Amino acid sequence: MQNFSLAPDGTEYILPNEEQSKIEREEILRITEEQKKLGRKIVTVQGLGFVGCVMAVVIADAVDENGEPIYYVHGHQRPSKRSFWKVPVINTGIPPVNSSDKEVPELFERCVNQKKNFRATWHDVAYEVADVVVVDIQLDATKPAFGEAEKGYCDITHFRDGMRTLGQHIKPDCLILVETTVPPGTCQKIVKPIIEEEFIKRGINIKKNPALVAHSYERVMPGAKYVSSIRDFWRVFSGVNEQSKTLAREFLSNVLNVENFPLTELDNTNASEMAKVMENSYRATNIALTLEWARFAEKVDVDIFKVRDAIRKRKGTHDNLLRPSLGVGGYCLTKDPVLANWSMKDVFEIDDTLSVAVNSVNINDTMPTHTVDLIKEEIPELRDVNITVLGVSYLEDVGDTRHSPSFTLVRLLRENWAEVICHDVYVEFWAELETEEVHNDLDTVLKGAEVVILAVGHSAYKDIEPADLVKKCGTKPLIIDCSNFLSDEKIKQYKNLGCKMKGVGKGHIENL
Amino acid sequence: MQNFSLAPDGTEYILPNEEQSKIEREEILRITEEQKKLGRKIVTVQGLGFVGCVMAVVIADAVDENGEPIYYVHGHQRPSKRSFWKVPVINTGIPPVNSSDKEVPELFERCVNQKKNFRATWHDVAYEVADVVVVDIQLDATKPAFGEAEKGYCDITHFRDGMRTLGQHIKPDCLILVETTVPPGTCQKIVKPIIEEEFIKRGINIKKNPALVAHSYERVMPGAKYVSSIRDFWRVFSGVNEQSKTLAREFLSNVLNVENFPLTELDNTNASEMAKVMENSYRATNIALTLEWARFAEKVDVDIFKVRDAIRKRKGTHDNLLRPSLGVGGYCLTKDPVLANWSMKDVFEIDDTLSVAVNSVNINDTMPTHTVDLIKEEIPELRDVNITVLGVSYLEDVGDTRHSPSFTLVRLLRENWAEVICHDVYVEFWAELETEEVHNDLDTVLKGAEVVILAVGHSAYKDIEPADLVKKCGTKPLIIDCSNFLSDEKIKQYKNLGCKMKGVGKGHIENL
Repeated sequence: MQNFSLAPDGTEYILPNEEQSKIEREEILRITEEQKKLGRKIVTVQGLGFVGCVMAVVIADAVDENGEPIYYVHGHQRPSKRSFWKVPVINTGIPPVNSSDKEVPELFERCVNQKKNFRATWHDVAYEVADVVVVDIQLDATKPAFGEAEKGYCDITHFRDGMRTLGQHIKPDCLILVETTVPPGTCQKIVKPIIEEEFIKRGINIKKNPALVAHSYERVMPGAKYVSSIRDFWRVFSGVNEQSKTLAREFLSNVLNVENFPLTELDNTNASEMAKVMENSYRATNIALTLEWARFAEKVDVDIFKVRDAIRKRKGTHDNLLRPSLGVGGYCLTKDPVLANWSMKDVFEIDDTLSVAVNSVNINDTMPTHTVDLIKEEIPELRDVNITVLGVSYLEDVGDTRHSPSFTLVRLLRENWAEVICHDVYVEFWAELETEEVHNDLDTVLKGAEVVILAVGHSAYKDIEPADLVKKCGTKPLIIDCSNFLSDEKIKQYKNLGCKMKGVGKGHIENL
Repeated sequence: MQNFSLAPDGTEYILPNEEQSKIEREEILRITEEQKKLGRKIVTVQGLGFVGCVMAVVIADAVDENGEPIYYVHGHQRPSKRSFWKVPVINTGIPPVNSSDKEVPELFERCVNQKKNFRATWHDVAYEVADVVVVDIQLDATKPAFGEAEKGYCDITHFRDGMRTLGQHIKPDCLILVETTVPPGTCQKIVKPIIEEEFIKRGINIKKNPALVAHSYERVMPGAKYVSSIRDFWRVFSGVNEQSKTLAREFLSNVLNVENFPLTELDNTNASEMAKVMENSYRATNIALTLEWARFAEKVDVDIFKVRDAIRKRKGTHDNLLRPSLGVGGYCLTKDPVLANWSMKDVFEIDDTLSVAVNSVNINDTMPTHTVDLIKEEIPELRDVNITVLGVSYLEDVGDTRHSPSFTLVRLLRENWAEVICHDVYVEFWAELETEEVHNDLDTVLKGAEVVILAVGHSAYKDIEPADLVKKCGTKPLIIDCSNFLSDEKIKQYKNLGCKMKGVGKGHIENL
């Protein structure tokens, strides 16, 4: 049986054994003693995923008025085959995530190798020594059927296990700061009871030492401002009691740029948890709205993107209006309305639904079918048609493929027996579609293409000259624009080159 | 038979007869000659309603670089019993609308009595002399069933008649600028064909003189910035051909503050018409979304307004988030999605629906039922219960009652046999509910109230001190907060006074 964890660079890291576990335990206790003598508090970050690993270095990088680190940070990652490799990699000073933000590797190098106040571990003793545990465990929504988000639910088994581990290990006065996006009600109705259940088993008097649980959600954006989107941005928080609120306020004020982005304290954790899923539901709904107007625009000689620009001139009241596209991906907008709806029914047992929000997820999830429909308007039978998809990530100029709408697009095209080939500028391996080779060379993917789908608005694609694209194809491909690639000028150029075009919300192409 | 038009002040104005009509015709021709000699162009505004009458004075008030008026404006109002009174009233220099904006009476006085370049008339000869006709005819959507906006339609008979009148009278080179919010497609598929049909009847060669039709929608807001919201704000426009666009651009540039708010030109009138109804659909959808979150908040100890404030800190991406309330009223958000949906089906014959937008109208139209539900949670049987409704207009600090949600609220309460009494600060006569007396004295309406509904967020209501309200009631009324009246401080005060409270989205009241 495989007993190693495979890093993305191909290195195999043997999972730790009992002997190493003993040594690691001693090492953590030794470091903790040493760091406490320096007057530093101990923070353990639970889960070194997309948010946790960067949050950990942001905490480690926080300094007091003398420029001295305030915290020592243990980054905790369970020793699973999937993720254990992160521990040794981080401990060389290398981030476990790819990012276009230069601050990410800088922070890891500085905190691990220079300040030496951040270290990753797999050992649970890191929870025993912590003054603050920051929870960054992933929590997903499951949508059992395509386009039926109302049936979606949240499997919190893994999250509950994580909380139980904390309850078994933490000091009674340790603050648990949940940063994971959770269904509203989680801190009050799930985390607190589990922690206190374990406290009681440990003989801790929960009247005197109630669980200290707070919630504060991040608003991280992948891309060039990855670190800054965590540190230099508005934060909302609350706690399950006054002491949790006070501790959370103090901790966040030490770690984040609260001078420029003052904290927002809400009445209780229900409110803080709700704010996060509501703000993403707001965006999901705005995108869903745009699809029906895009379809309308396509039939009546209108470019919906110009209409959108006209509307968005009204700053403060209309400039949040989003745009139609291939579809909606990523980790937040696709699941947060589902978490909220599930919470309403299952956590709070309320007989109601968040129907606008959930319906929006359905519209957004199935949005790629509209792009397939556009192609079929020109080519009704897609069997054996050579289709090139440019872009498989879920966002422009980012290599993140989580819940990418290109995934749905490729699946739908293959269900129509099309010959699909994919390209991305930032993605080499499409983790979600494991068998899928993603090409990085335009010449290869375009040669012989009968349909070229401009799927994701990467700058590199926006820069492609029509003449160059057509030359690379060696055909007169049908151009499908999912993301407002085609300026009026480019539309004219493609027309002159003999290409037909269709675009999401680009109804003016034909008459231009 | 009554042959007069009754002004709001009670004055009766006899409708004009044939003799007066002849005199009026001569007068208009005489004025036109005189004004042309002064180098002024002639503009006729068709329809002196809420937008038309103010637009007319804004046009009249426009000056060239020498401070001289650019236009002479005829304001045209059909001599109907309902509206003829506006003509003589305007011609004394008094606006036919009430407004808290001081600029409104100033502009009427200045243009009618001082500059003398604005005059109202009922005579169609005003169209014959016009270089530009600005169309401000009202165009409504009809929703035949409560909460079923998908069945809504637009009766354009009256609007078509207005266009036919223009086609019969205007000079072939007159620009028709449609300012009315119309179903997308109206200028191209309704206005232009009617005008040209009439042109052909008049022997005009439409190859040489195609109808010159443009569209530019206003974004007027009732209230203290009434005039400014027309003149000093972003404008979108387009035309059915290049000449219409050019003439519209020139006209709007003369009349509006385009230096600070440059014009946005779109490809065609479909796009311009769509922009208006889409921007209002956007807002309608955002409000609909908030209701389900308000209901959620109410059950889980959350104040949705604090959550909203937390989300709106994200300027440019989240600050358009609207708020739940008693419901949605006014003239735009309640009908524009319906106009668009009807256009898609009936004007363009597209087999599709704007389901997100239309569903939002349904949610918003039925929103007052939620307030009734809140009351019933405390008082299940409303028969003979004394209920006072504070606010019947559709917007805070405005006296406009068009499509006010208070109308639905009062109807629903009476269906439950409650004893309802209404108050407003700005409304004396509730035109939509003709039998309804709206009181302006708080003492009268509060005395004996068992339920007080803070329905509309007028400042005067926000200022009411709990002790004062309870004293006026002489009871311990149930307070129903529809519009975030109750600060935490006031909630505590009402509690101390022995009052129960419920509020839309105010779930934290009980545990505060």
